[in-house]
Amino acid sequence: MKAIIIIGDGMGDRQLSELNYLTPLEAAKPKNMDNVALLGVSGLLHAISPGVAPGSDIATLAILGYDPYRVYTGRGGFEAIGAGIELRDEDVAFRCDFATVNEDFIIVDENAGRIREEAVELATQIQDLKLRTASDVEVIFKQTLGFKGVLVLRGERLSPNVSACKPKLGNQADLIKPLDRSLEAKRTADALNEFIKITYNVLKDHPINQKRRLKGKPPANVLIPWGGGKRPSLKPLYERYGVKGACVAAASLIKGICKLACMDIVDVPGATGEVDTNTIAKADAALRALKDHDLVLIHVEGPDEASHDGDIAGKILIIKKIDSMVGTIIKNISLEENYIMLLADHATPVKLKKHTADPTPITIAGSDVVRDEVSRYSERAAYKGGLGHIRGKYIMPILLNLMGRPVEFDIPSNLTGRVRL
Amino acid sequence: MKAIIIIGDGMGDRQLSELNYLTPLEAAKPKNMDNVALLGVSGLLHAISPGVAPGSDIATLAILGYDPYRVYTGRGGFEAIGAGIELRDEDVAFRCDFATVNEDFIIVDENAGRIREEAVELATQIQDLKLRTASDVEVIFKQTLGFKGVLVLRGERLSPNVSACKPKLGNQADLIKPLDRSLEAKRTADALNEFIKITYNVLKDHPINQKRRLKGKPPANVLIPWGGGKRPSLKPLYERYGVKGACVAAASLIKGICKLACMDIVDVPGATGEVDTNTIAKADAALRALKDHDLVLIHVEGPDEASHDGDIAGKILIIKKIDSMVGTIIKNISLEENYIMLLADHATPVKLKKHTADPTPITIAGSDVVRDEVSRYSERAAYKGGLGHIRGKYIMPILLNLMGRPVEFDIPSNLTGRVRL
Repeated sequence: MKAIIIIGDGMGDRQLSELNYLTPLEAAKPKNMDNVALLGVSGLLHAISPGVAPGSDIATLAILGYDPYRVYTGRGGFEAIGAGIELRDEDVAFRCDFATVNEDFIIVDENAGRIREEAVELATQIQDLKLRTASDVEVIFKQTLGFKGVLVLRGERLSPNVSACKPKLGNQADLIKPLDRSLEAKRTADALNEFIKITYNVLKDHPINQKRRLKGKPPANVLIPWGGGKRPSLKPLYERYGVKGACVAAASLIKGICKLACMDIVDVPGATGEVDTNTIAKADAALRALKDHDLVLIHVEGPDEASHDGDIAGKILIIKKIDSMVGTIIKNISLEENYIMLLADHATPVKLKKHTADPTPITIAGSDVVRDEVSRYSERAAYKGGLGHIRGKYIMPILLNLMGRPVEFDIPSNLTGRVRL
Repeated sequence: MKAIIIIGDGMGDRQLSELNYLTPLEAAKPKNMDNVALLGVSGLLHAISPGVAPGSDIATLAILGYDPYRVYTGRGGFEAIGAGIELRDEDVAFRCDFATVNEDFIIVDENAGRIREEAVELATQIQDLKLRTASDVEVIFKQTLGFKGVLVLRGERLSPNVSACKPKLGNQADLIKPLDRSLEAKRTADALNEFIKITYNVLKDHPINQKRRLKGKPPANVLIPWGGGKRPSLKPLYERYGVKGACVAAASLIKGICKLACMDIVDVPGATGEVDTNTIAKADAALRALKDHDLVLIHVEGPDEASHDGDIAGKILIIKKIDSMVGTIIKNISLEENYIMLLADHATPVKLKKHTADPTPITIAGSDVVRDEVSRYSERAAYKGGLGHIRGKYIMPILLNLMGRPVEFDIPSNLTGRVRL
């Protein structure tokens, strides 16, 4: 038995007056997702615990059975690994986004108007930077998807413990502060503030940005590092659970987690991490990966992006596209031989434009799964689901159990308990 | 107020194509069990936690309110106590099954074709054995039910930390290994391997086995010890909860747990631990025990045995027999004075032939229990139950609460919490 896990990032939401008090999932009428719910058992997922809003890194770790409270070393480490950077133990890594600042370094656009292809050319300008504040530190920047990228500071005496936060409208970009009194944190904060200023000087008058200004688009005139972290370490998924896994994702963050879990990363042309991503290409890639893997995880970033933008129509559109992806998958697999699990890792209500702790619908289908009466995949329909409310950490055990590989009560050598789920 | 707990071992299952996608519980149409569900509140039980597949020992401990992570010392200890052996602190005890091996000690039948009465005579051959590898060790073997028995090694410097696993088709029987570098583990592994070889030499040409061979039945030509453990210790049930308990069970394992909990053990003629067990005799015994006990636990092993054999018809048959037992009980007790709780300790899907972590239906009836709308006792019906998903460790607190003896919030003298549910 094999399994496919489909994660719609931030797909969960609330009922919206604009949608006649339906949620985006309800308004999208995703008939294939509904079909999965009809064929399986549904419930509501709390990636960590009720009331806790996770980042997608935290939620994905939990969903894959890793305890974020034990393995999480900051977002940047996962991003860098996912971007293909061979991270060293001494490195400090950051997510690093193109944004727009004014002359006082106040953020006026959090992602430079969602700059896309032009970011590739701009990124070439940010190579071989030397820092005055930390001349022994190597600066590695890599653009990944559109405005997104990764920054790695390589050298001794560095620390992720600095106030480098996700770009937020109205915040000052170049005021990153150390969060402890160590030399390492002070040095890293200084290096980051200098990095931000250098990128501004390099980018602000670049021809691409001059053209963007002429078109009324915000210039990508700065790079803002955030979510610092050290090199993480995960026990391989096959060692933990005996399953060979593959990952179909655009987002570096998710690729990084899966790469660290020793899952195979399937790159998909046309997977953009945005609403315009090619979900059918992702379905095809997943179906191919399923041939020689036990577990395939498909992650679609789009719903979260639309939600952060407050874009209701965009969220409904990407849900419909995920629904087509689900349709392609269920048309091409047998539920006698495969389980299919559909979930949102967390809610990102479009009205709030940020991650929340609202429970999200989850459904699992397979020929021997005892079906419940839920026939819709939505936040509301899942209230009546047979799974009840479950936590992220139980997802892998539940799925492995269905696959005939239950986690057995563990009796260690000293005959007193060890593993507690 | 008194209570009866009825446990159908491994009674939970999945929907089966052979049963038109019903579960064995649904297909059996157990009208008395359904009546208990109708009269009470239902839910789904995870003996330990979601995704964890327990043995029946682990599950029963949890159901009786004992934390297996604290009290579990291996299966063998409970089996030996249940078989009536006065276990000493230095003893190491094993479940020990008649099986069939070929000349290379490869297991070709895990339970010697479920040998029954003939095992009693064969067991008389396995007495006063002397071991060359551990000449100071006393060897105590006791047959219990059919192919099942108990082996106790009595002596100094012994350890349960050896690789003695449940007999499995195709495995080599006489290759038990120490699981640590201690002298004790090495000595015990050597003793067990020698024991296995001796039993083979004693049993292989016994007239009973010659007759079995002539009839085309697998000879019970070896004894295989597994599930080693030390003497366990449980705080008596009446000290923990103030209730006087009785146990109606065939399986030594369950008897052992209940005996250690200082419950009275009621032996029932005709209780075989198999599908052919006399469930009505068990009902009568339980009704008698109820007269001078507060809590009577009835355990029926049959569904688990049928499930391990992959026997769908057998599983449905024993469910129907348990249903008759339930019918006899509800006809003879008043729900004004008694609560009746019906559950499966875990699922043993007949297709998988092993314990899994699938949640199992539980229902509690009593005249003042707030009824839900569930009117069937099944995995599917329980999805809508008012109890939701509960864990084994909450069963006793829930039952005692109904009985008017709630576990009270415990504030110890140092004003920090102690008992955590």
